[in-house]
Amino acid sequence: MFGAIEGGGTKFVCAVGTGPEELAITQFSTESPEPTVARAIAFLKERSGGRLQAVGIGSFGPVDLSPSSPTFGCITSTPKPGWQNYDFAGAVGQALGVPVGFDTDVDASALGESRWGAAQSVSDFLYLTVGTGIGGGAIVNGQILHGLIHPEVGHIRIPHDLQRDPYRGCCPFHGDCLEGLACGPAIEKRWGKPAHELTVDHPAWALEAHYLALGLANWVCTLSPKRIILGGGVMQQQSLFPLIRAELIRLLNGYVRSKELIENMEQYVVPPKLGNRAGIAGALVLAEQAYQQQRNRAAIPGHSENTR
Amino acid sequence: MFGAIEGGGTKFVCAVGTGPEELAITQFSTESPEPTVARAIAFLKERSGGRLQAVGIGSFGPVDLSPSSPTFGCITSTPKPGWQNYDFAGAVGQALGVPVGFDTDVDASALGESRWGAAQSVSDFLYLTVGTGIGGGAIVNGQILHGLIHPEVGHIRIPHDLQRDPYRGCCPFHGDCLEGLACGPAIEKRWGKPAHELTVDHPAWALEAHYLALGLANWVCTLSPKRIILGGGVMQQQSLFPLIRAELIRLLNGYVRSKELIENMEQYVVPPKLGNRAGIAGALVLAEQAYQQQRNRAAIPGHSENTR
Repeated sequence: MFGAIEGGGTKFVCAVGTGPEELAITQFSTESPEPTVARAIAFLKERSGGRLQAVGIGSFGPVDLSPSSPTFGCITSTPKPGWQNYDFAGAVGQALGVPVGFDTDVDASALGESRWGAAQSVSDFLYLTVGTGIGGGAIVNGQILHGLIHPEVGHIRIPHDLQRDPYRGCCPFHGDCLEGLACGPAIEKRWGKPAHELTVDHPAWALEAHYLALGLANWVCTLSPKRIILGGGVMQQQSLFPLIRAELIRLLNGYVRSKELIENMEQYVVPPKLGNRAGIAGALVLAEQAYQQQRNRAAIPGHSENTR
Repeated sequence: MFGAIEGGGTKFVCAVGTGPEELAITQFSTESPEPTVARAIAFLKERSGGRLQAVGIGSFGPVDLSPSSPTFGCITSTPKPGWQNYDFAGAVGQALGVPVGFDTDVDASALGESRWGAAQSVSDFLYLTVGTGIGGGAIVNGQILHGLIHPEVGHIRIPHDLQRDPYRGCCPFHGDCLEGLACGPAIEKRWGKPAHELTVDHPAWALEAHYLALGLANWVCTLSPKRIILGGGVMQQQSLFPLIRAELIRLLNGYVRSKELIENMEQYVVPPKLGNRAGIAGALVLAEQAYQQQRNRAAIPGHSENTR
């Protein structure tokens, strides 16, 4: 039995179970770190009857994922008060005494969709979330892409035609990067109402599809994914999918010759199968991986828990 | 002893040897496929005295790298006359009767720099070439990134300020994608003379650094590389390196918090150590991999060459 925490900047989701269909689940809003994490730990202890074998955490970021770093498992430079340099993985591991798997919330979502969702047996894909921010997790050759830190795909620069769209963008770091132009708050600031209040024929959606397709075109050229999963609050507007697919085809303009991109675009750009459970399901996968790693280490002669 | 072919759109480089310092090498211009490849095969046969164990090919593209595809090893949709759908790997393998490793020229360069050059023991990096076109090979978690086809990083869309730079771009597919704005031919068309004739204080270089840094910023956000190697003819202008590094820092604006990006930019954006031998050296690595794969297959009981 595994524990899972999806630690978001706005809300925490916690679960105990074995898969997306076998979950005891709760959620509450994110306050300062200590009481929030204490509440998560209390839930995990109680629901598991103390029988947890490992915990997985998908966290808002940026986070330190480098196993050799002294601050591995910490949230790093977030503007969220109290959470800078908070040792998230360490706090959970100490309280529960079990192995902890730790990654970004979007990497967790990608893992969840890989195991149970829209990317089963797909070796290379991108999971993108479009909501308060824009973030993504990439799987390459069947493994999560971390690299130097982890991707921050929302912050790529894209063409911005100021005549068509005079809105300057809302990213505090980059102004009109993709996130600055196309996240939920950007839609609200540009059009004067939140995305979920805009009717399906509102011009906001064609512009949104244009920006997201520019992002997708750049990731097709860079990551060469076999599928792109689009989740998050803004993507609740289902009519975005056909608009994005058509715009992506227009932008690629036949350059990347692949049946998947030319004939099967409806299977190429897809919604998540697990919906808003992708992240918490993926945190279970992180728990399982941490559990396996501990077992593998224990199986090496002379390599006990004490020498970790 | 391995054979190596770097098949470029303009010239072919062929070599026999064991590493970048131990190479018998030749080059000639690329004509139609049959005589060009026959010349490569003749060189490999003669120089090896018939003792080749495998051959590696780094090819211009796009190419089919999918091992399960009936057209694996072929060049696909190139506009280069005669080369469309040419079975490059098949022709070499049939003529020489040895295993053939096959990948893009830029993936080969990335492999060469990984083994002997500027990215030794770097698990995640990008090799970029800026010349007649712009292309790149990415290593993620120590493995080449292929994905659906292979990256075409030169074709990402970037901001283009038409007031600063009214030149519309030269990409036949996308106009002002990165390659369309920043490849060698774009520089020549914009300024009226080729890059190598422009003095070091020409405004062309600041603009070129701006465009390349926009590309780099997008790849930092997407691939999270630990290093970026910039090769190719345009990068012969060494003064581009400090301009690109400064512009990349400005564009990232402190968002991606990493010592490597903030304090060690001079070790982060670097020239190739193997210079113009990266590609042919990487083709040797491809040969070695093909040789190892054949040995591994042969070691599986009941799995002989005939059942491949």
